[in-house]
Amino acid sequence: MRDEAPDQRVQDIGEQGLLKRLQAFCPADIVGDDAAVLDVPVGRSLIVTTDVLVDRVHFSDRTTSPEDVGWRAAAANLSDLAAMGAMPLGITVGLGVPGDLAVNWVERLYQGLTDCLRQYGTVIVGGDVVRSPIITIAITAFGEADPNRIIRRSTARSGDAIVVTGIHGASRAGLELLLHPEQGQSLNPGDRTLLIQAHQRPKPRLDVLPVLWRLWDKEDAQNSKFKIQNSKFKIPLITGMDSSDGLADAVIQLCRASGIGARIERNQIPIPPMLIEWVTPEQAMNWALYGGEDFELVLCLPPEVAQILVDQLGDRAAMIGTTTLEPEVWLVDSSGSYPNERLTFEQGFQHFG
Amino acid sequence: MRDEAPDQRVQDIGEQGLLKRLQAFCPADIVGDDAAVLDVPVGRSLIVTTDVLVDRVHFSDRTTSPEDVGWRAAAANLSDLAAMGAMPLGITVGLGVPGDLAVNWVERLYQGLTDCLRQYGTVIVGGDVVRSPIITIAITAFGEADPNRIIRRSTARSGDAIVVTGIHGASRAGLELLLHPEQGQSLNPGDRTLLIQAHQRPKPRLDVLPVLWRLWDKEDAQNSKFKIQNSKFKIPLITGMDSSDGLADAVIQLCRASGIGARIERNQIPIPPMLIEWVTPEQAMNWALYGGEDFELVLCLPPEVAQILVDQLGDRAAMIGTTTLEPEVWLVDSSGSYPNERLTFEQGFQHFG
Repeated sequence: MRDEAPDQRVQDIGEQGLLKRLQAFCPADIVGDDAAVLDVPVGRSLIVTTDVLVDRVHFSDRTTSPEDVGWRAAAANLSDLAAMGAMPLGITVGLGVPGDLAVNWVERLYQGLTDCLRQYGTVIVGGDVVRSPIITIAITAFGEADPNRIIRRSTARSGDAIVVTGIHGASRAGLELLLHPEQGQSLNPGDRTLLIQAHQRPKPRLDVLPVLWRLWDKEDAQNSKFKIQNSKFKIPLITGMDSSDGLADAVIQLCRASGIGARIERNQIPIPPMLIEWVTPEQAMNWALYGGEDFELVLCLPPEVAQILVDQLGDRAAMIGTTTLEPEVWLVDSSGSYPNERLTFEQGFQHFG
Repeated sequence: MRDEAPDQRVQDIGEQGLLKRLQAFCPADIVGDDAAVLDVPVGRSLIVTTDVLVDRVHFSDRTTSPEDVGWRAAAANLSDLAAMGAMPLGITVGLGVPGDLAVNWVERLYQGLTDCLRQYGTVIVGGDVVRSPIITIAITAFGEADPNRIIRRSTARSGDAIVVTGIHGASRAGLELLLHPEQGQSLNPGDRTLLIQAHQRPKPRLDVLPVLWRLWDKEDAQNSKFKIQNSKFKIPLITGMDSSDGLADAVIQLCRASGIGARIERNQIPIPPMLIEWVTPEQAMNWALYGGEDFELVLCLPPEVAQILVDQLGDRAAMIGTTTLEPEVWLVDSSGSYPNERLTFEQGFQHFG
């Protein structure tokens, strides 16, 4: 289909023509009404999240193919579902495109979206296509979760262990290589590809959820300890969010929402090992804390439970610190090489405008 | 709050600052996590629809205040839910805004959104705010419906009566008055206001759904007739969609999806009576058929059931024609003043680009 008319523009086939082409990426039984029909399993809560991506603000042809834009957009939304403890039911895609955009660009975007969704067993269930002077992609993702096991931001308590999945800083490092291909000459080609892939094809951590759930299901000694720890709540609580806006931001947000603080151990933060060959330790730490878009999970759990989780996830997770009553977030170095540093939103946020 | 800093721009308070201001328009218990949590009643299907609106493509400061942009955006999505037979559970709002946009503009947009939602007992449950060179509003609406009473486009059969709610052409006429205030001098001020309101504050026809459901619930003679009519299906079916893209478009879409045709009686189409004092009958009919944005329901039902529905809705509905085996849509005039006219998509659609 793609090679039939490679120069075809959106304005050549019109909004309806484009919609028809894009329906090929949706399940046939879902297309063709004013709205999509989904079933939420009995007894499960519906989880809803939405993201808007704008050309030249959130992505760029320089670093991202249309397929990668699609993958990243899907992954970001699925990551928000994972951060709530929800498995995906589907997404809708609202698309604004200039009339002179190549139809092929849009089809490649949808290819990337569906490639990512397929990995996680879900689909595009609906959408809208409109004319816009700038490419705009608005995704809403739906998931379903056990109402008693929803992961929230506000339920951490002082003394919780802070667990992160995966590594941090890889996405930002990959972006650097895409923006400045002359950099990172000391990296071997395999490591280079891994970093770039981390930026272009991030993986939402839906795989962590079944491991978390097993902690509750298992009637073993550790689990009853956990239940006792949480006995002042009716149900055990999991606290967490994803690190899409950076690891520092996630820790600060969790602490603020829960009314507590944290001490993060600098040496415990998992940083991609190949960065050591390429940039200074300070630069690597900066990317890990503030780079963002690693789409890992940051969780607060009673220390015993955190230990079991880390044991079960193996090198896919690490304990990086502890929550504190004092409502400040500190980056500390037990080896004494660096002074303690207070983490604040100001360092972490890209300001608007 | 609005008068405190009337000149404040989005870039002055940043994305996070704006988000915080907008959270005042959402229920407090829903704000602050990666995603919103909703409950779908047991045994009900989740209905999802999405729309994207772009400044200067779908709305304009010339004809529409920010409150009206919000109202219309909410109404369009609730209308899609009504067209599926679904009652609303909530909406998400994905917003792209230039940094130099007045914060007050965004607050007024959200005021219009929530004013409309409140009328229909629903709320904003989540959203995203990003920087964009052009104001873009992406709304996803969620509703819940009885899985056996979902209104679809593809289930009409030849011999069905075609019922429309409300009047058609009023929204397009109101737009004309906004674009050319010097027009319509013959209209009295009350009628003028009614037409402009039809454009600025359209009403999704969620009120029709309980009337439709009662047709199924009542165990009276007409109802059993209806059940017999539909006996080749396991459950009674309602066919329909909304007329957001025009009445002609709706009839053509329903016929195409159901593999049938229709004959529409020109004199039965309910047109706002005040148009007769203002424009030619041909102009009024053109606006009624192709103007769009009236957000009424177009339904195909067995004639006996259609008659009961029209009787119950009173002047809020009319029977305008019949579906036919022959897969073409004709506008006919039984009084003989106009020749039969075949309706096609080409007349109805705004082309893209």
